Amino acid sequence: MSFQLDKVVIFGVGLIGGSFALALKSAGAVRRVVGVGRTAGSISRALALGVIDEAGKDAGAARGADLVLLAMPVGQTREVMRALAPHLEEPTVVTDAGSTKRDVVQHAETELGGALARFVPAHPIAGAEHSGVDAASATLYQGRTVVLTPLPQTSERAAALVEQAWEACGAQVQRMAPREHDEVFAAVSHLPHLLAFALVDLVAGHANAGRLFEHAASGFRDFTRIASSHPEMWRDICMSNRDALLAELSGYEAELAQLRAILDRGDAGALQAVFERARAARNRWLESLK
Amino acid sequence: MSFQLDKVVIFGVGLIGGSFALALKSAGAVRRVVGVGRTAGSISRALALGVIDEAGKDAGAARGADLVLLAMPVGQTREVMRALAPHLEEPTVVTDAGSTKRDVVQHAETELGGALARFVPAHPIAGAEHSGVDAASATLYQGRTVVLTPLPQTSERAAALVEQAWEACGAQVQRMAPREHDEVFAAVSHLPHLLAFALVDLVAGHANAGRLFEHAASGFRDFTRIASSHPEMWRDICMSNRDALLAELSGYEAELAQLRAILDRGDAGALQAVFERARAARNRWLESLK
Repeated sequence: MSFQLDKVVIFGVGLIGGSFALALKSAGAVRRVVGVGRTAGSISRALALGVIDEAGKDAGAARGADLVLLAMPVGQTREVMRALAPHLEEPTVVTDAGSTKRDVVQHAETELGGALARFVPAHPIAGAEHSGVDAASATLYQGRTVVLTPLPQTSERAAALVEQAWEACGAQVQRMAPREHDEVFAAVSHLPHLLAFALVDLVAGHANAGRLFEHAASGFRDFTRIASSHPEMWRDICMSNRDALLAELSGYEAELAQLRAILDRGDAGALQAVFERARAARNRWLESLK
Repeated sequence: MSFQLDKVVIFGVGLIGGSFALALKSAGAVRRVVGVGRTAGSISRALALGVIDEAGKDAGAARGADLVLLAMPVGQTREVMRALAPHLEEPTVVTDAGSTKRDVVQHAETELGGALARFVPAHPIAGAEHSGVDAASATLYQGRTVVLTPLPQTSERAAALVEQAWEACGAQVQRMAPREHDEVFAAVSHLPHLLAFALVDLVAGHANAGRLFEHAASGFRDFTRIASSHPEMWRDICMSNRDALLAELSGYEAELAQLRAILDRGDAGALQAVFERARAARNRWLESLK
């Protein structure tokens, strides 16, 4: 394989950052991976597991890197970018792995200065129930999609380098505008998470919650699986994509109001029509995945 | 095993009725199973598969049965009960497998006459994505719960016989009042189905629906799995449990209004608190299943 990076620096070596490191290594696409973390524990664990080759002390570890990946919790994006900016000399390219993109772009515009043209916002679509470096895997990104949302000022060299790195990890890369990205994921990811948390919270708040959970079955379990997601991470995602999420929430509330009206007037035909339309759409989608 | 029925008659030999037949046979708990269906096709298929031993022509097939199971679509309950009533002589016991119970009880009170004391409303909790007699299995009810909702006038002999039959199928039997049953399942089953259909319908209605589905991932897939359920069956369930479902829907709308207010005022702490409460409740529930 002709694509090889000399030095990759990863801020936040958990599931996402750790899997990126392992996938690049497994593809022979990197010579040396340096990990930087807030806590010594996770970084020494990543060293012990062979996920990274070196522990970086601070943002200065980015010096001389071909590629820097920001994979810490998105709430730390601005602070890490600020610390990083003085160390980002040509030709170092920076990318991230955040689930929302407009907020990351705003921070980059404020903090990265001259390095902005070498920043490529990205979102690897690889949710997993587990987190932490122990769950990292060289195959996490196989066949997954990574969305890049380059800015008008992003250099094509930087975008192409990030694209090649993700392709080396086995992912398919797509490009999208940051606004479109955030609207798409508000609908198919952020809203469903909010709805799942809401249902569990509703059930748990009933006086007879124990009785209710006792009779919850596989439909409830699958519907609410994403309500076992990381609360802090989803708080950050929902807050940073608040406008798009609120717009989708309004649409959903309107959909429920329509179903309520149908139930109120006992219109079995209209109810069946909605259910059939939804099932057909979902089944078409499942077919398209084959 | 000392429990054995001589003749069991099943109205509607699909997944539920067929699996009941196979499980009883596999336990040596029945000598002869007669199936009755609206269409000749499914009954001859059930015969060919050995799920039933005999095809009954009509409601008269119930004569001389120890136990009659009503497992056809719940929309036909009243009509089948009416046809059945003249043939229900002592000691024939009747039960059903409907997902809602108050409506079934009302039909039984209207239609079954003197046989009402030998009617035991029941709900086997065994959802499956597949339907039809080809999906029937002797192990479908292993470890599952069957809720019985006997009436004040139900004879203990009848309730005990139905209980023994389900236990022979490997299920655990619980008793509950019809109203409590319907309220519990409105919360943990019927509402989630409505919500999943609503989300898919919302996404499918977007101008850029193709783009949205293209980026839907495993979280969306699991959340919406139940939106691939049978539209006619779920129409009937939602209509027949309309009052309890509307009450839960109101609770859910209030929950969403609360989350909207939290997002509107940008209250990250309150959002995280809801998510944490929900995740903790879900995880406690998962623990309790172990």
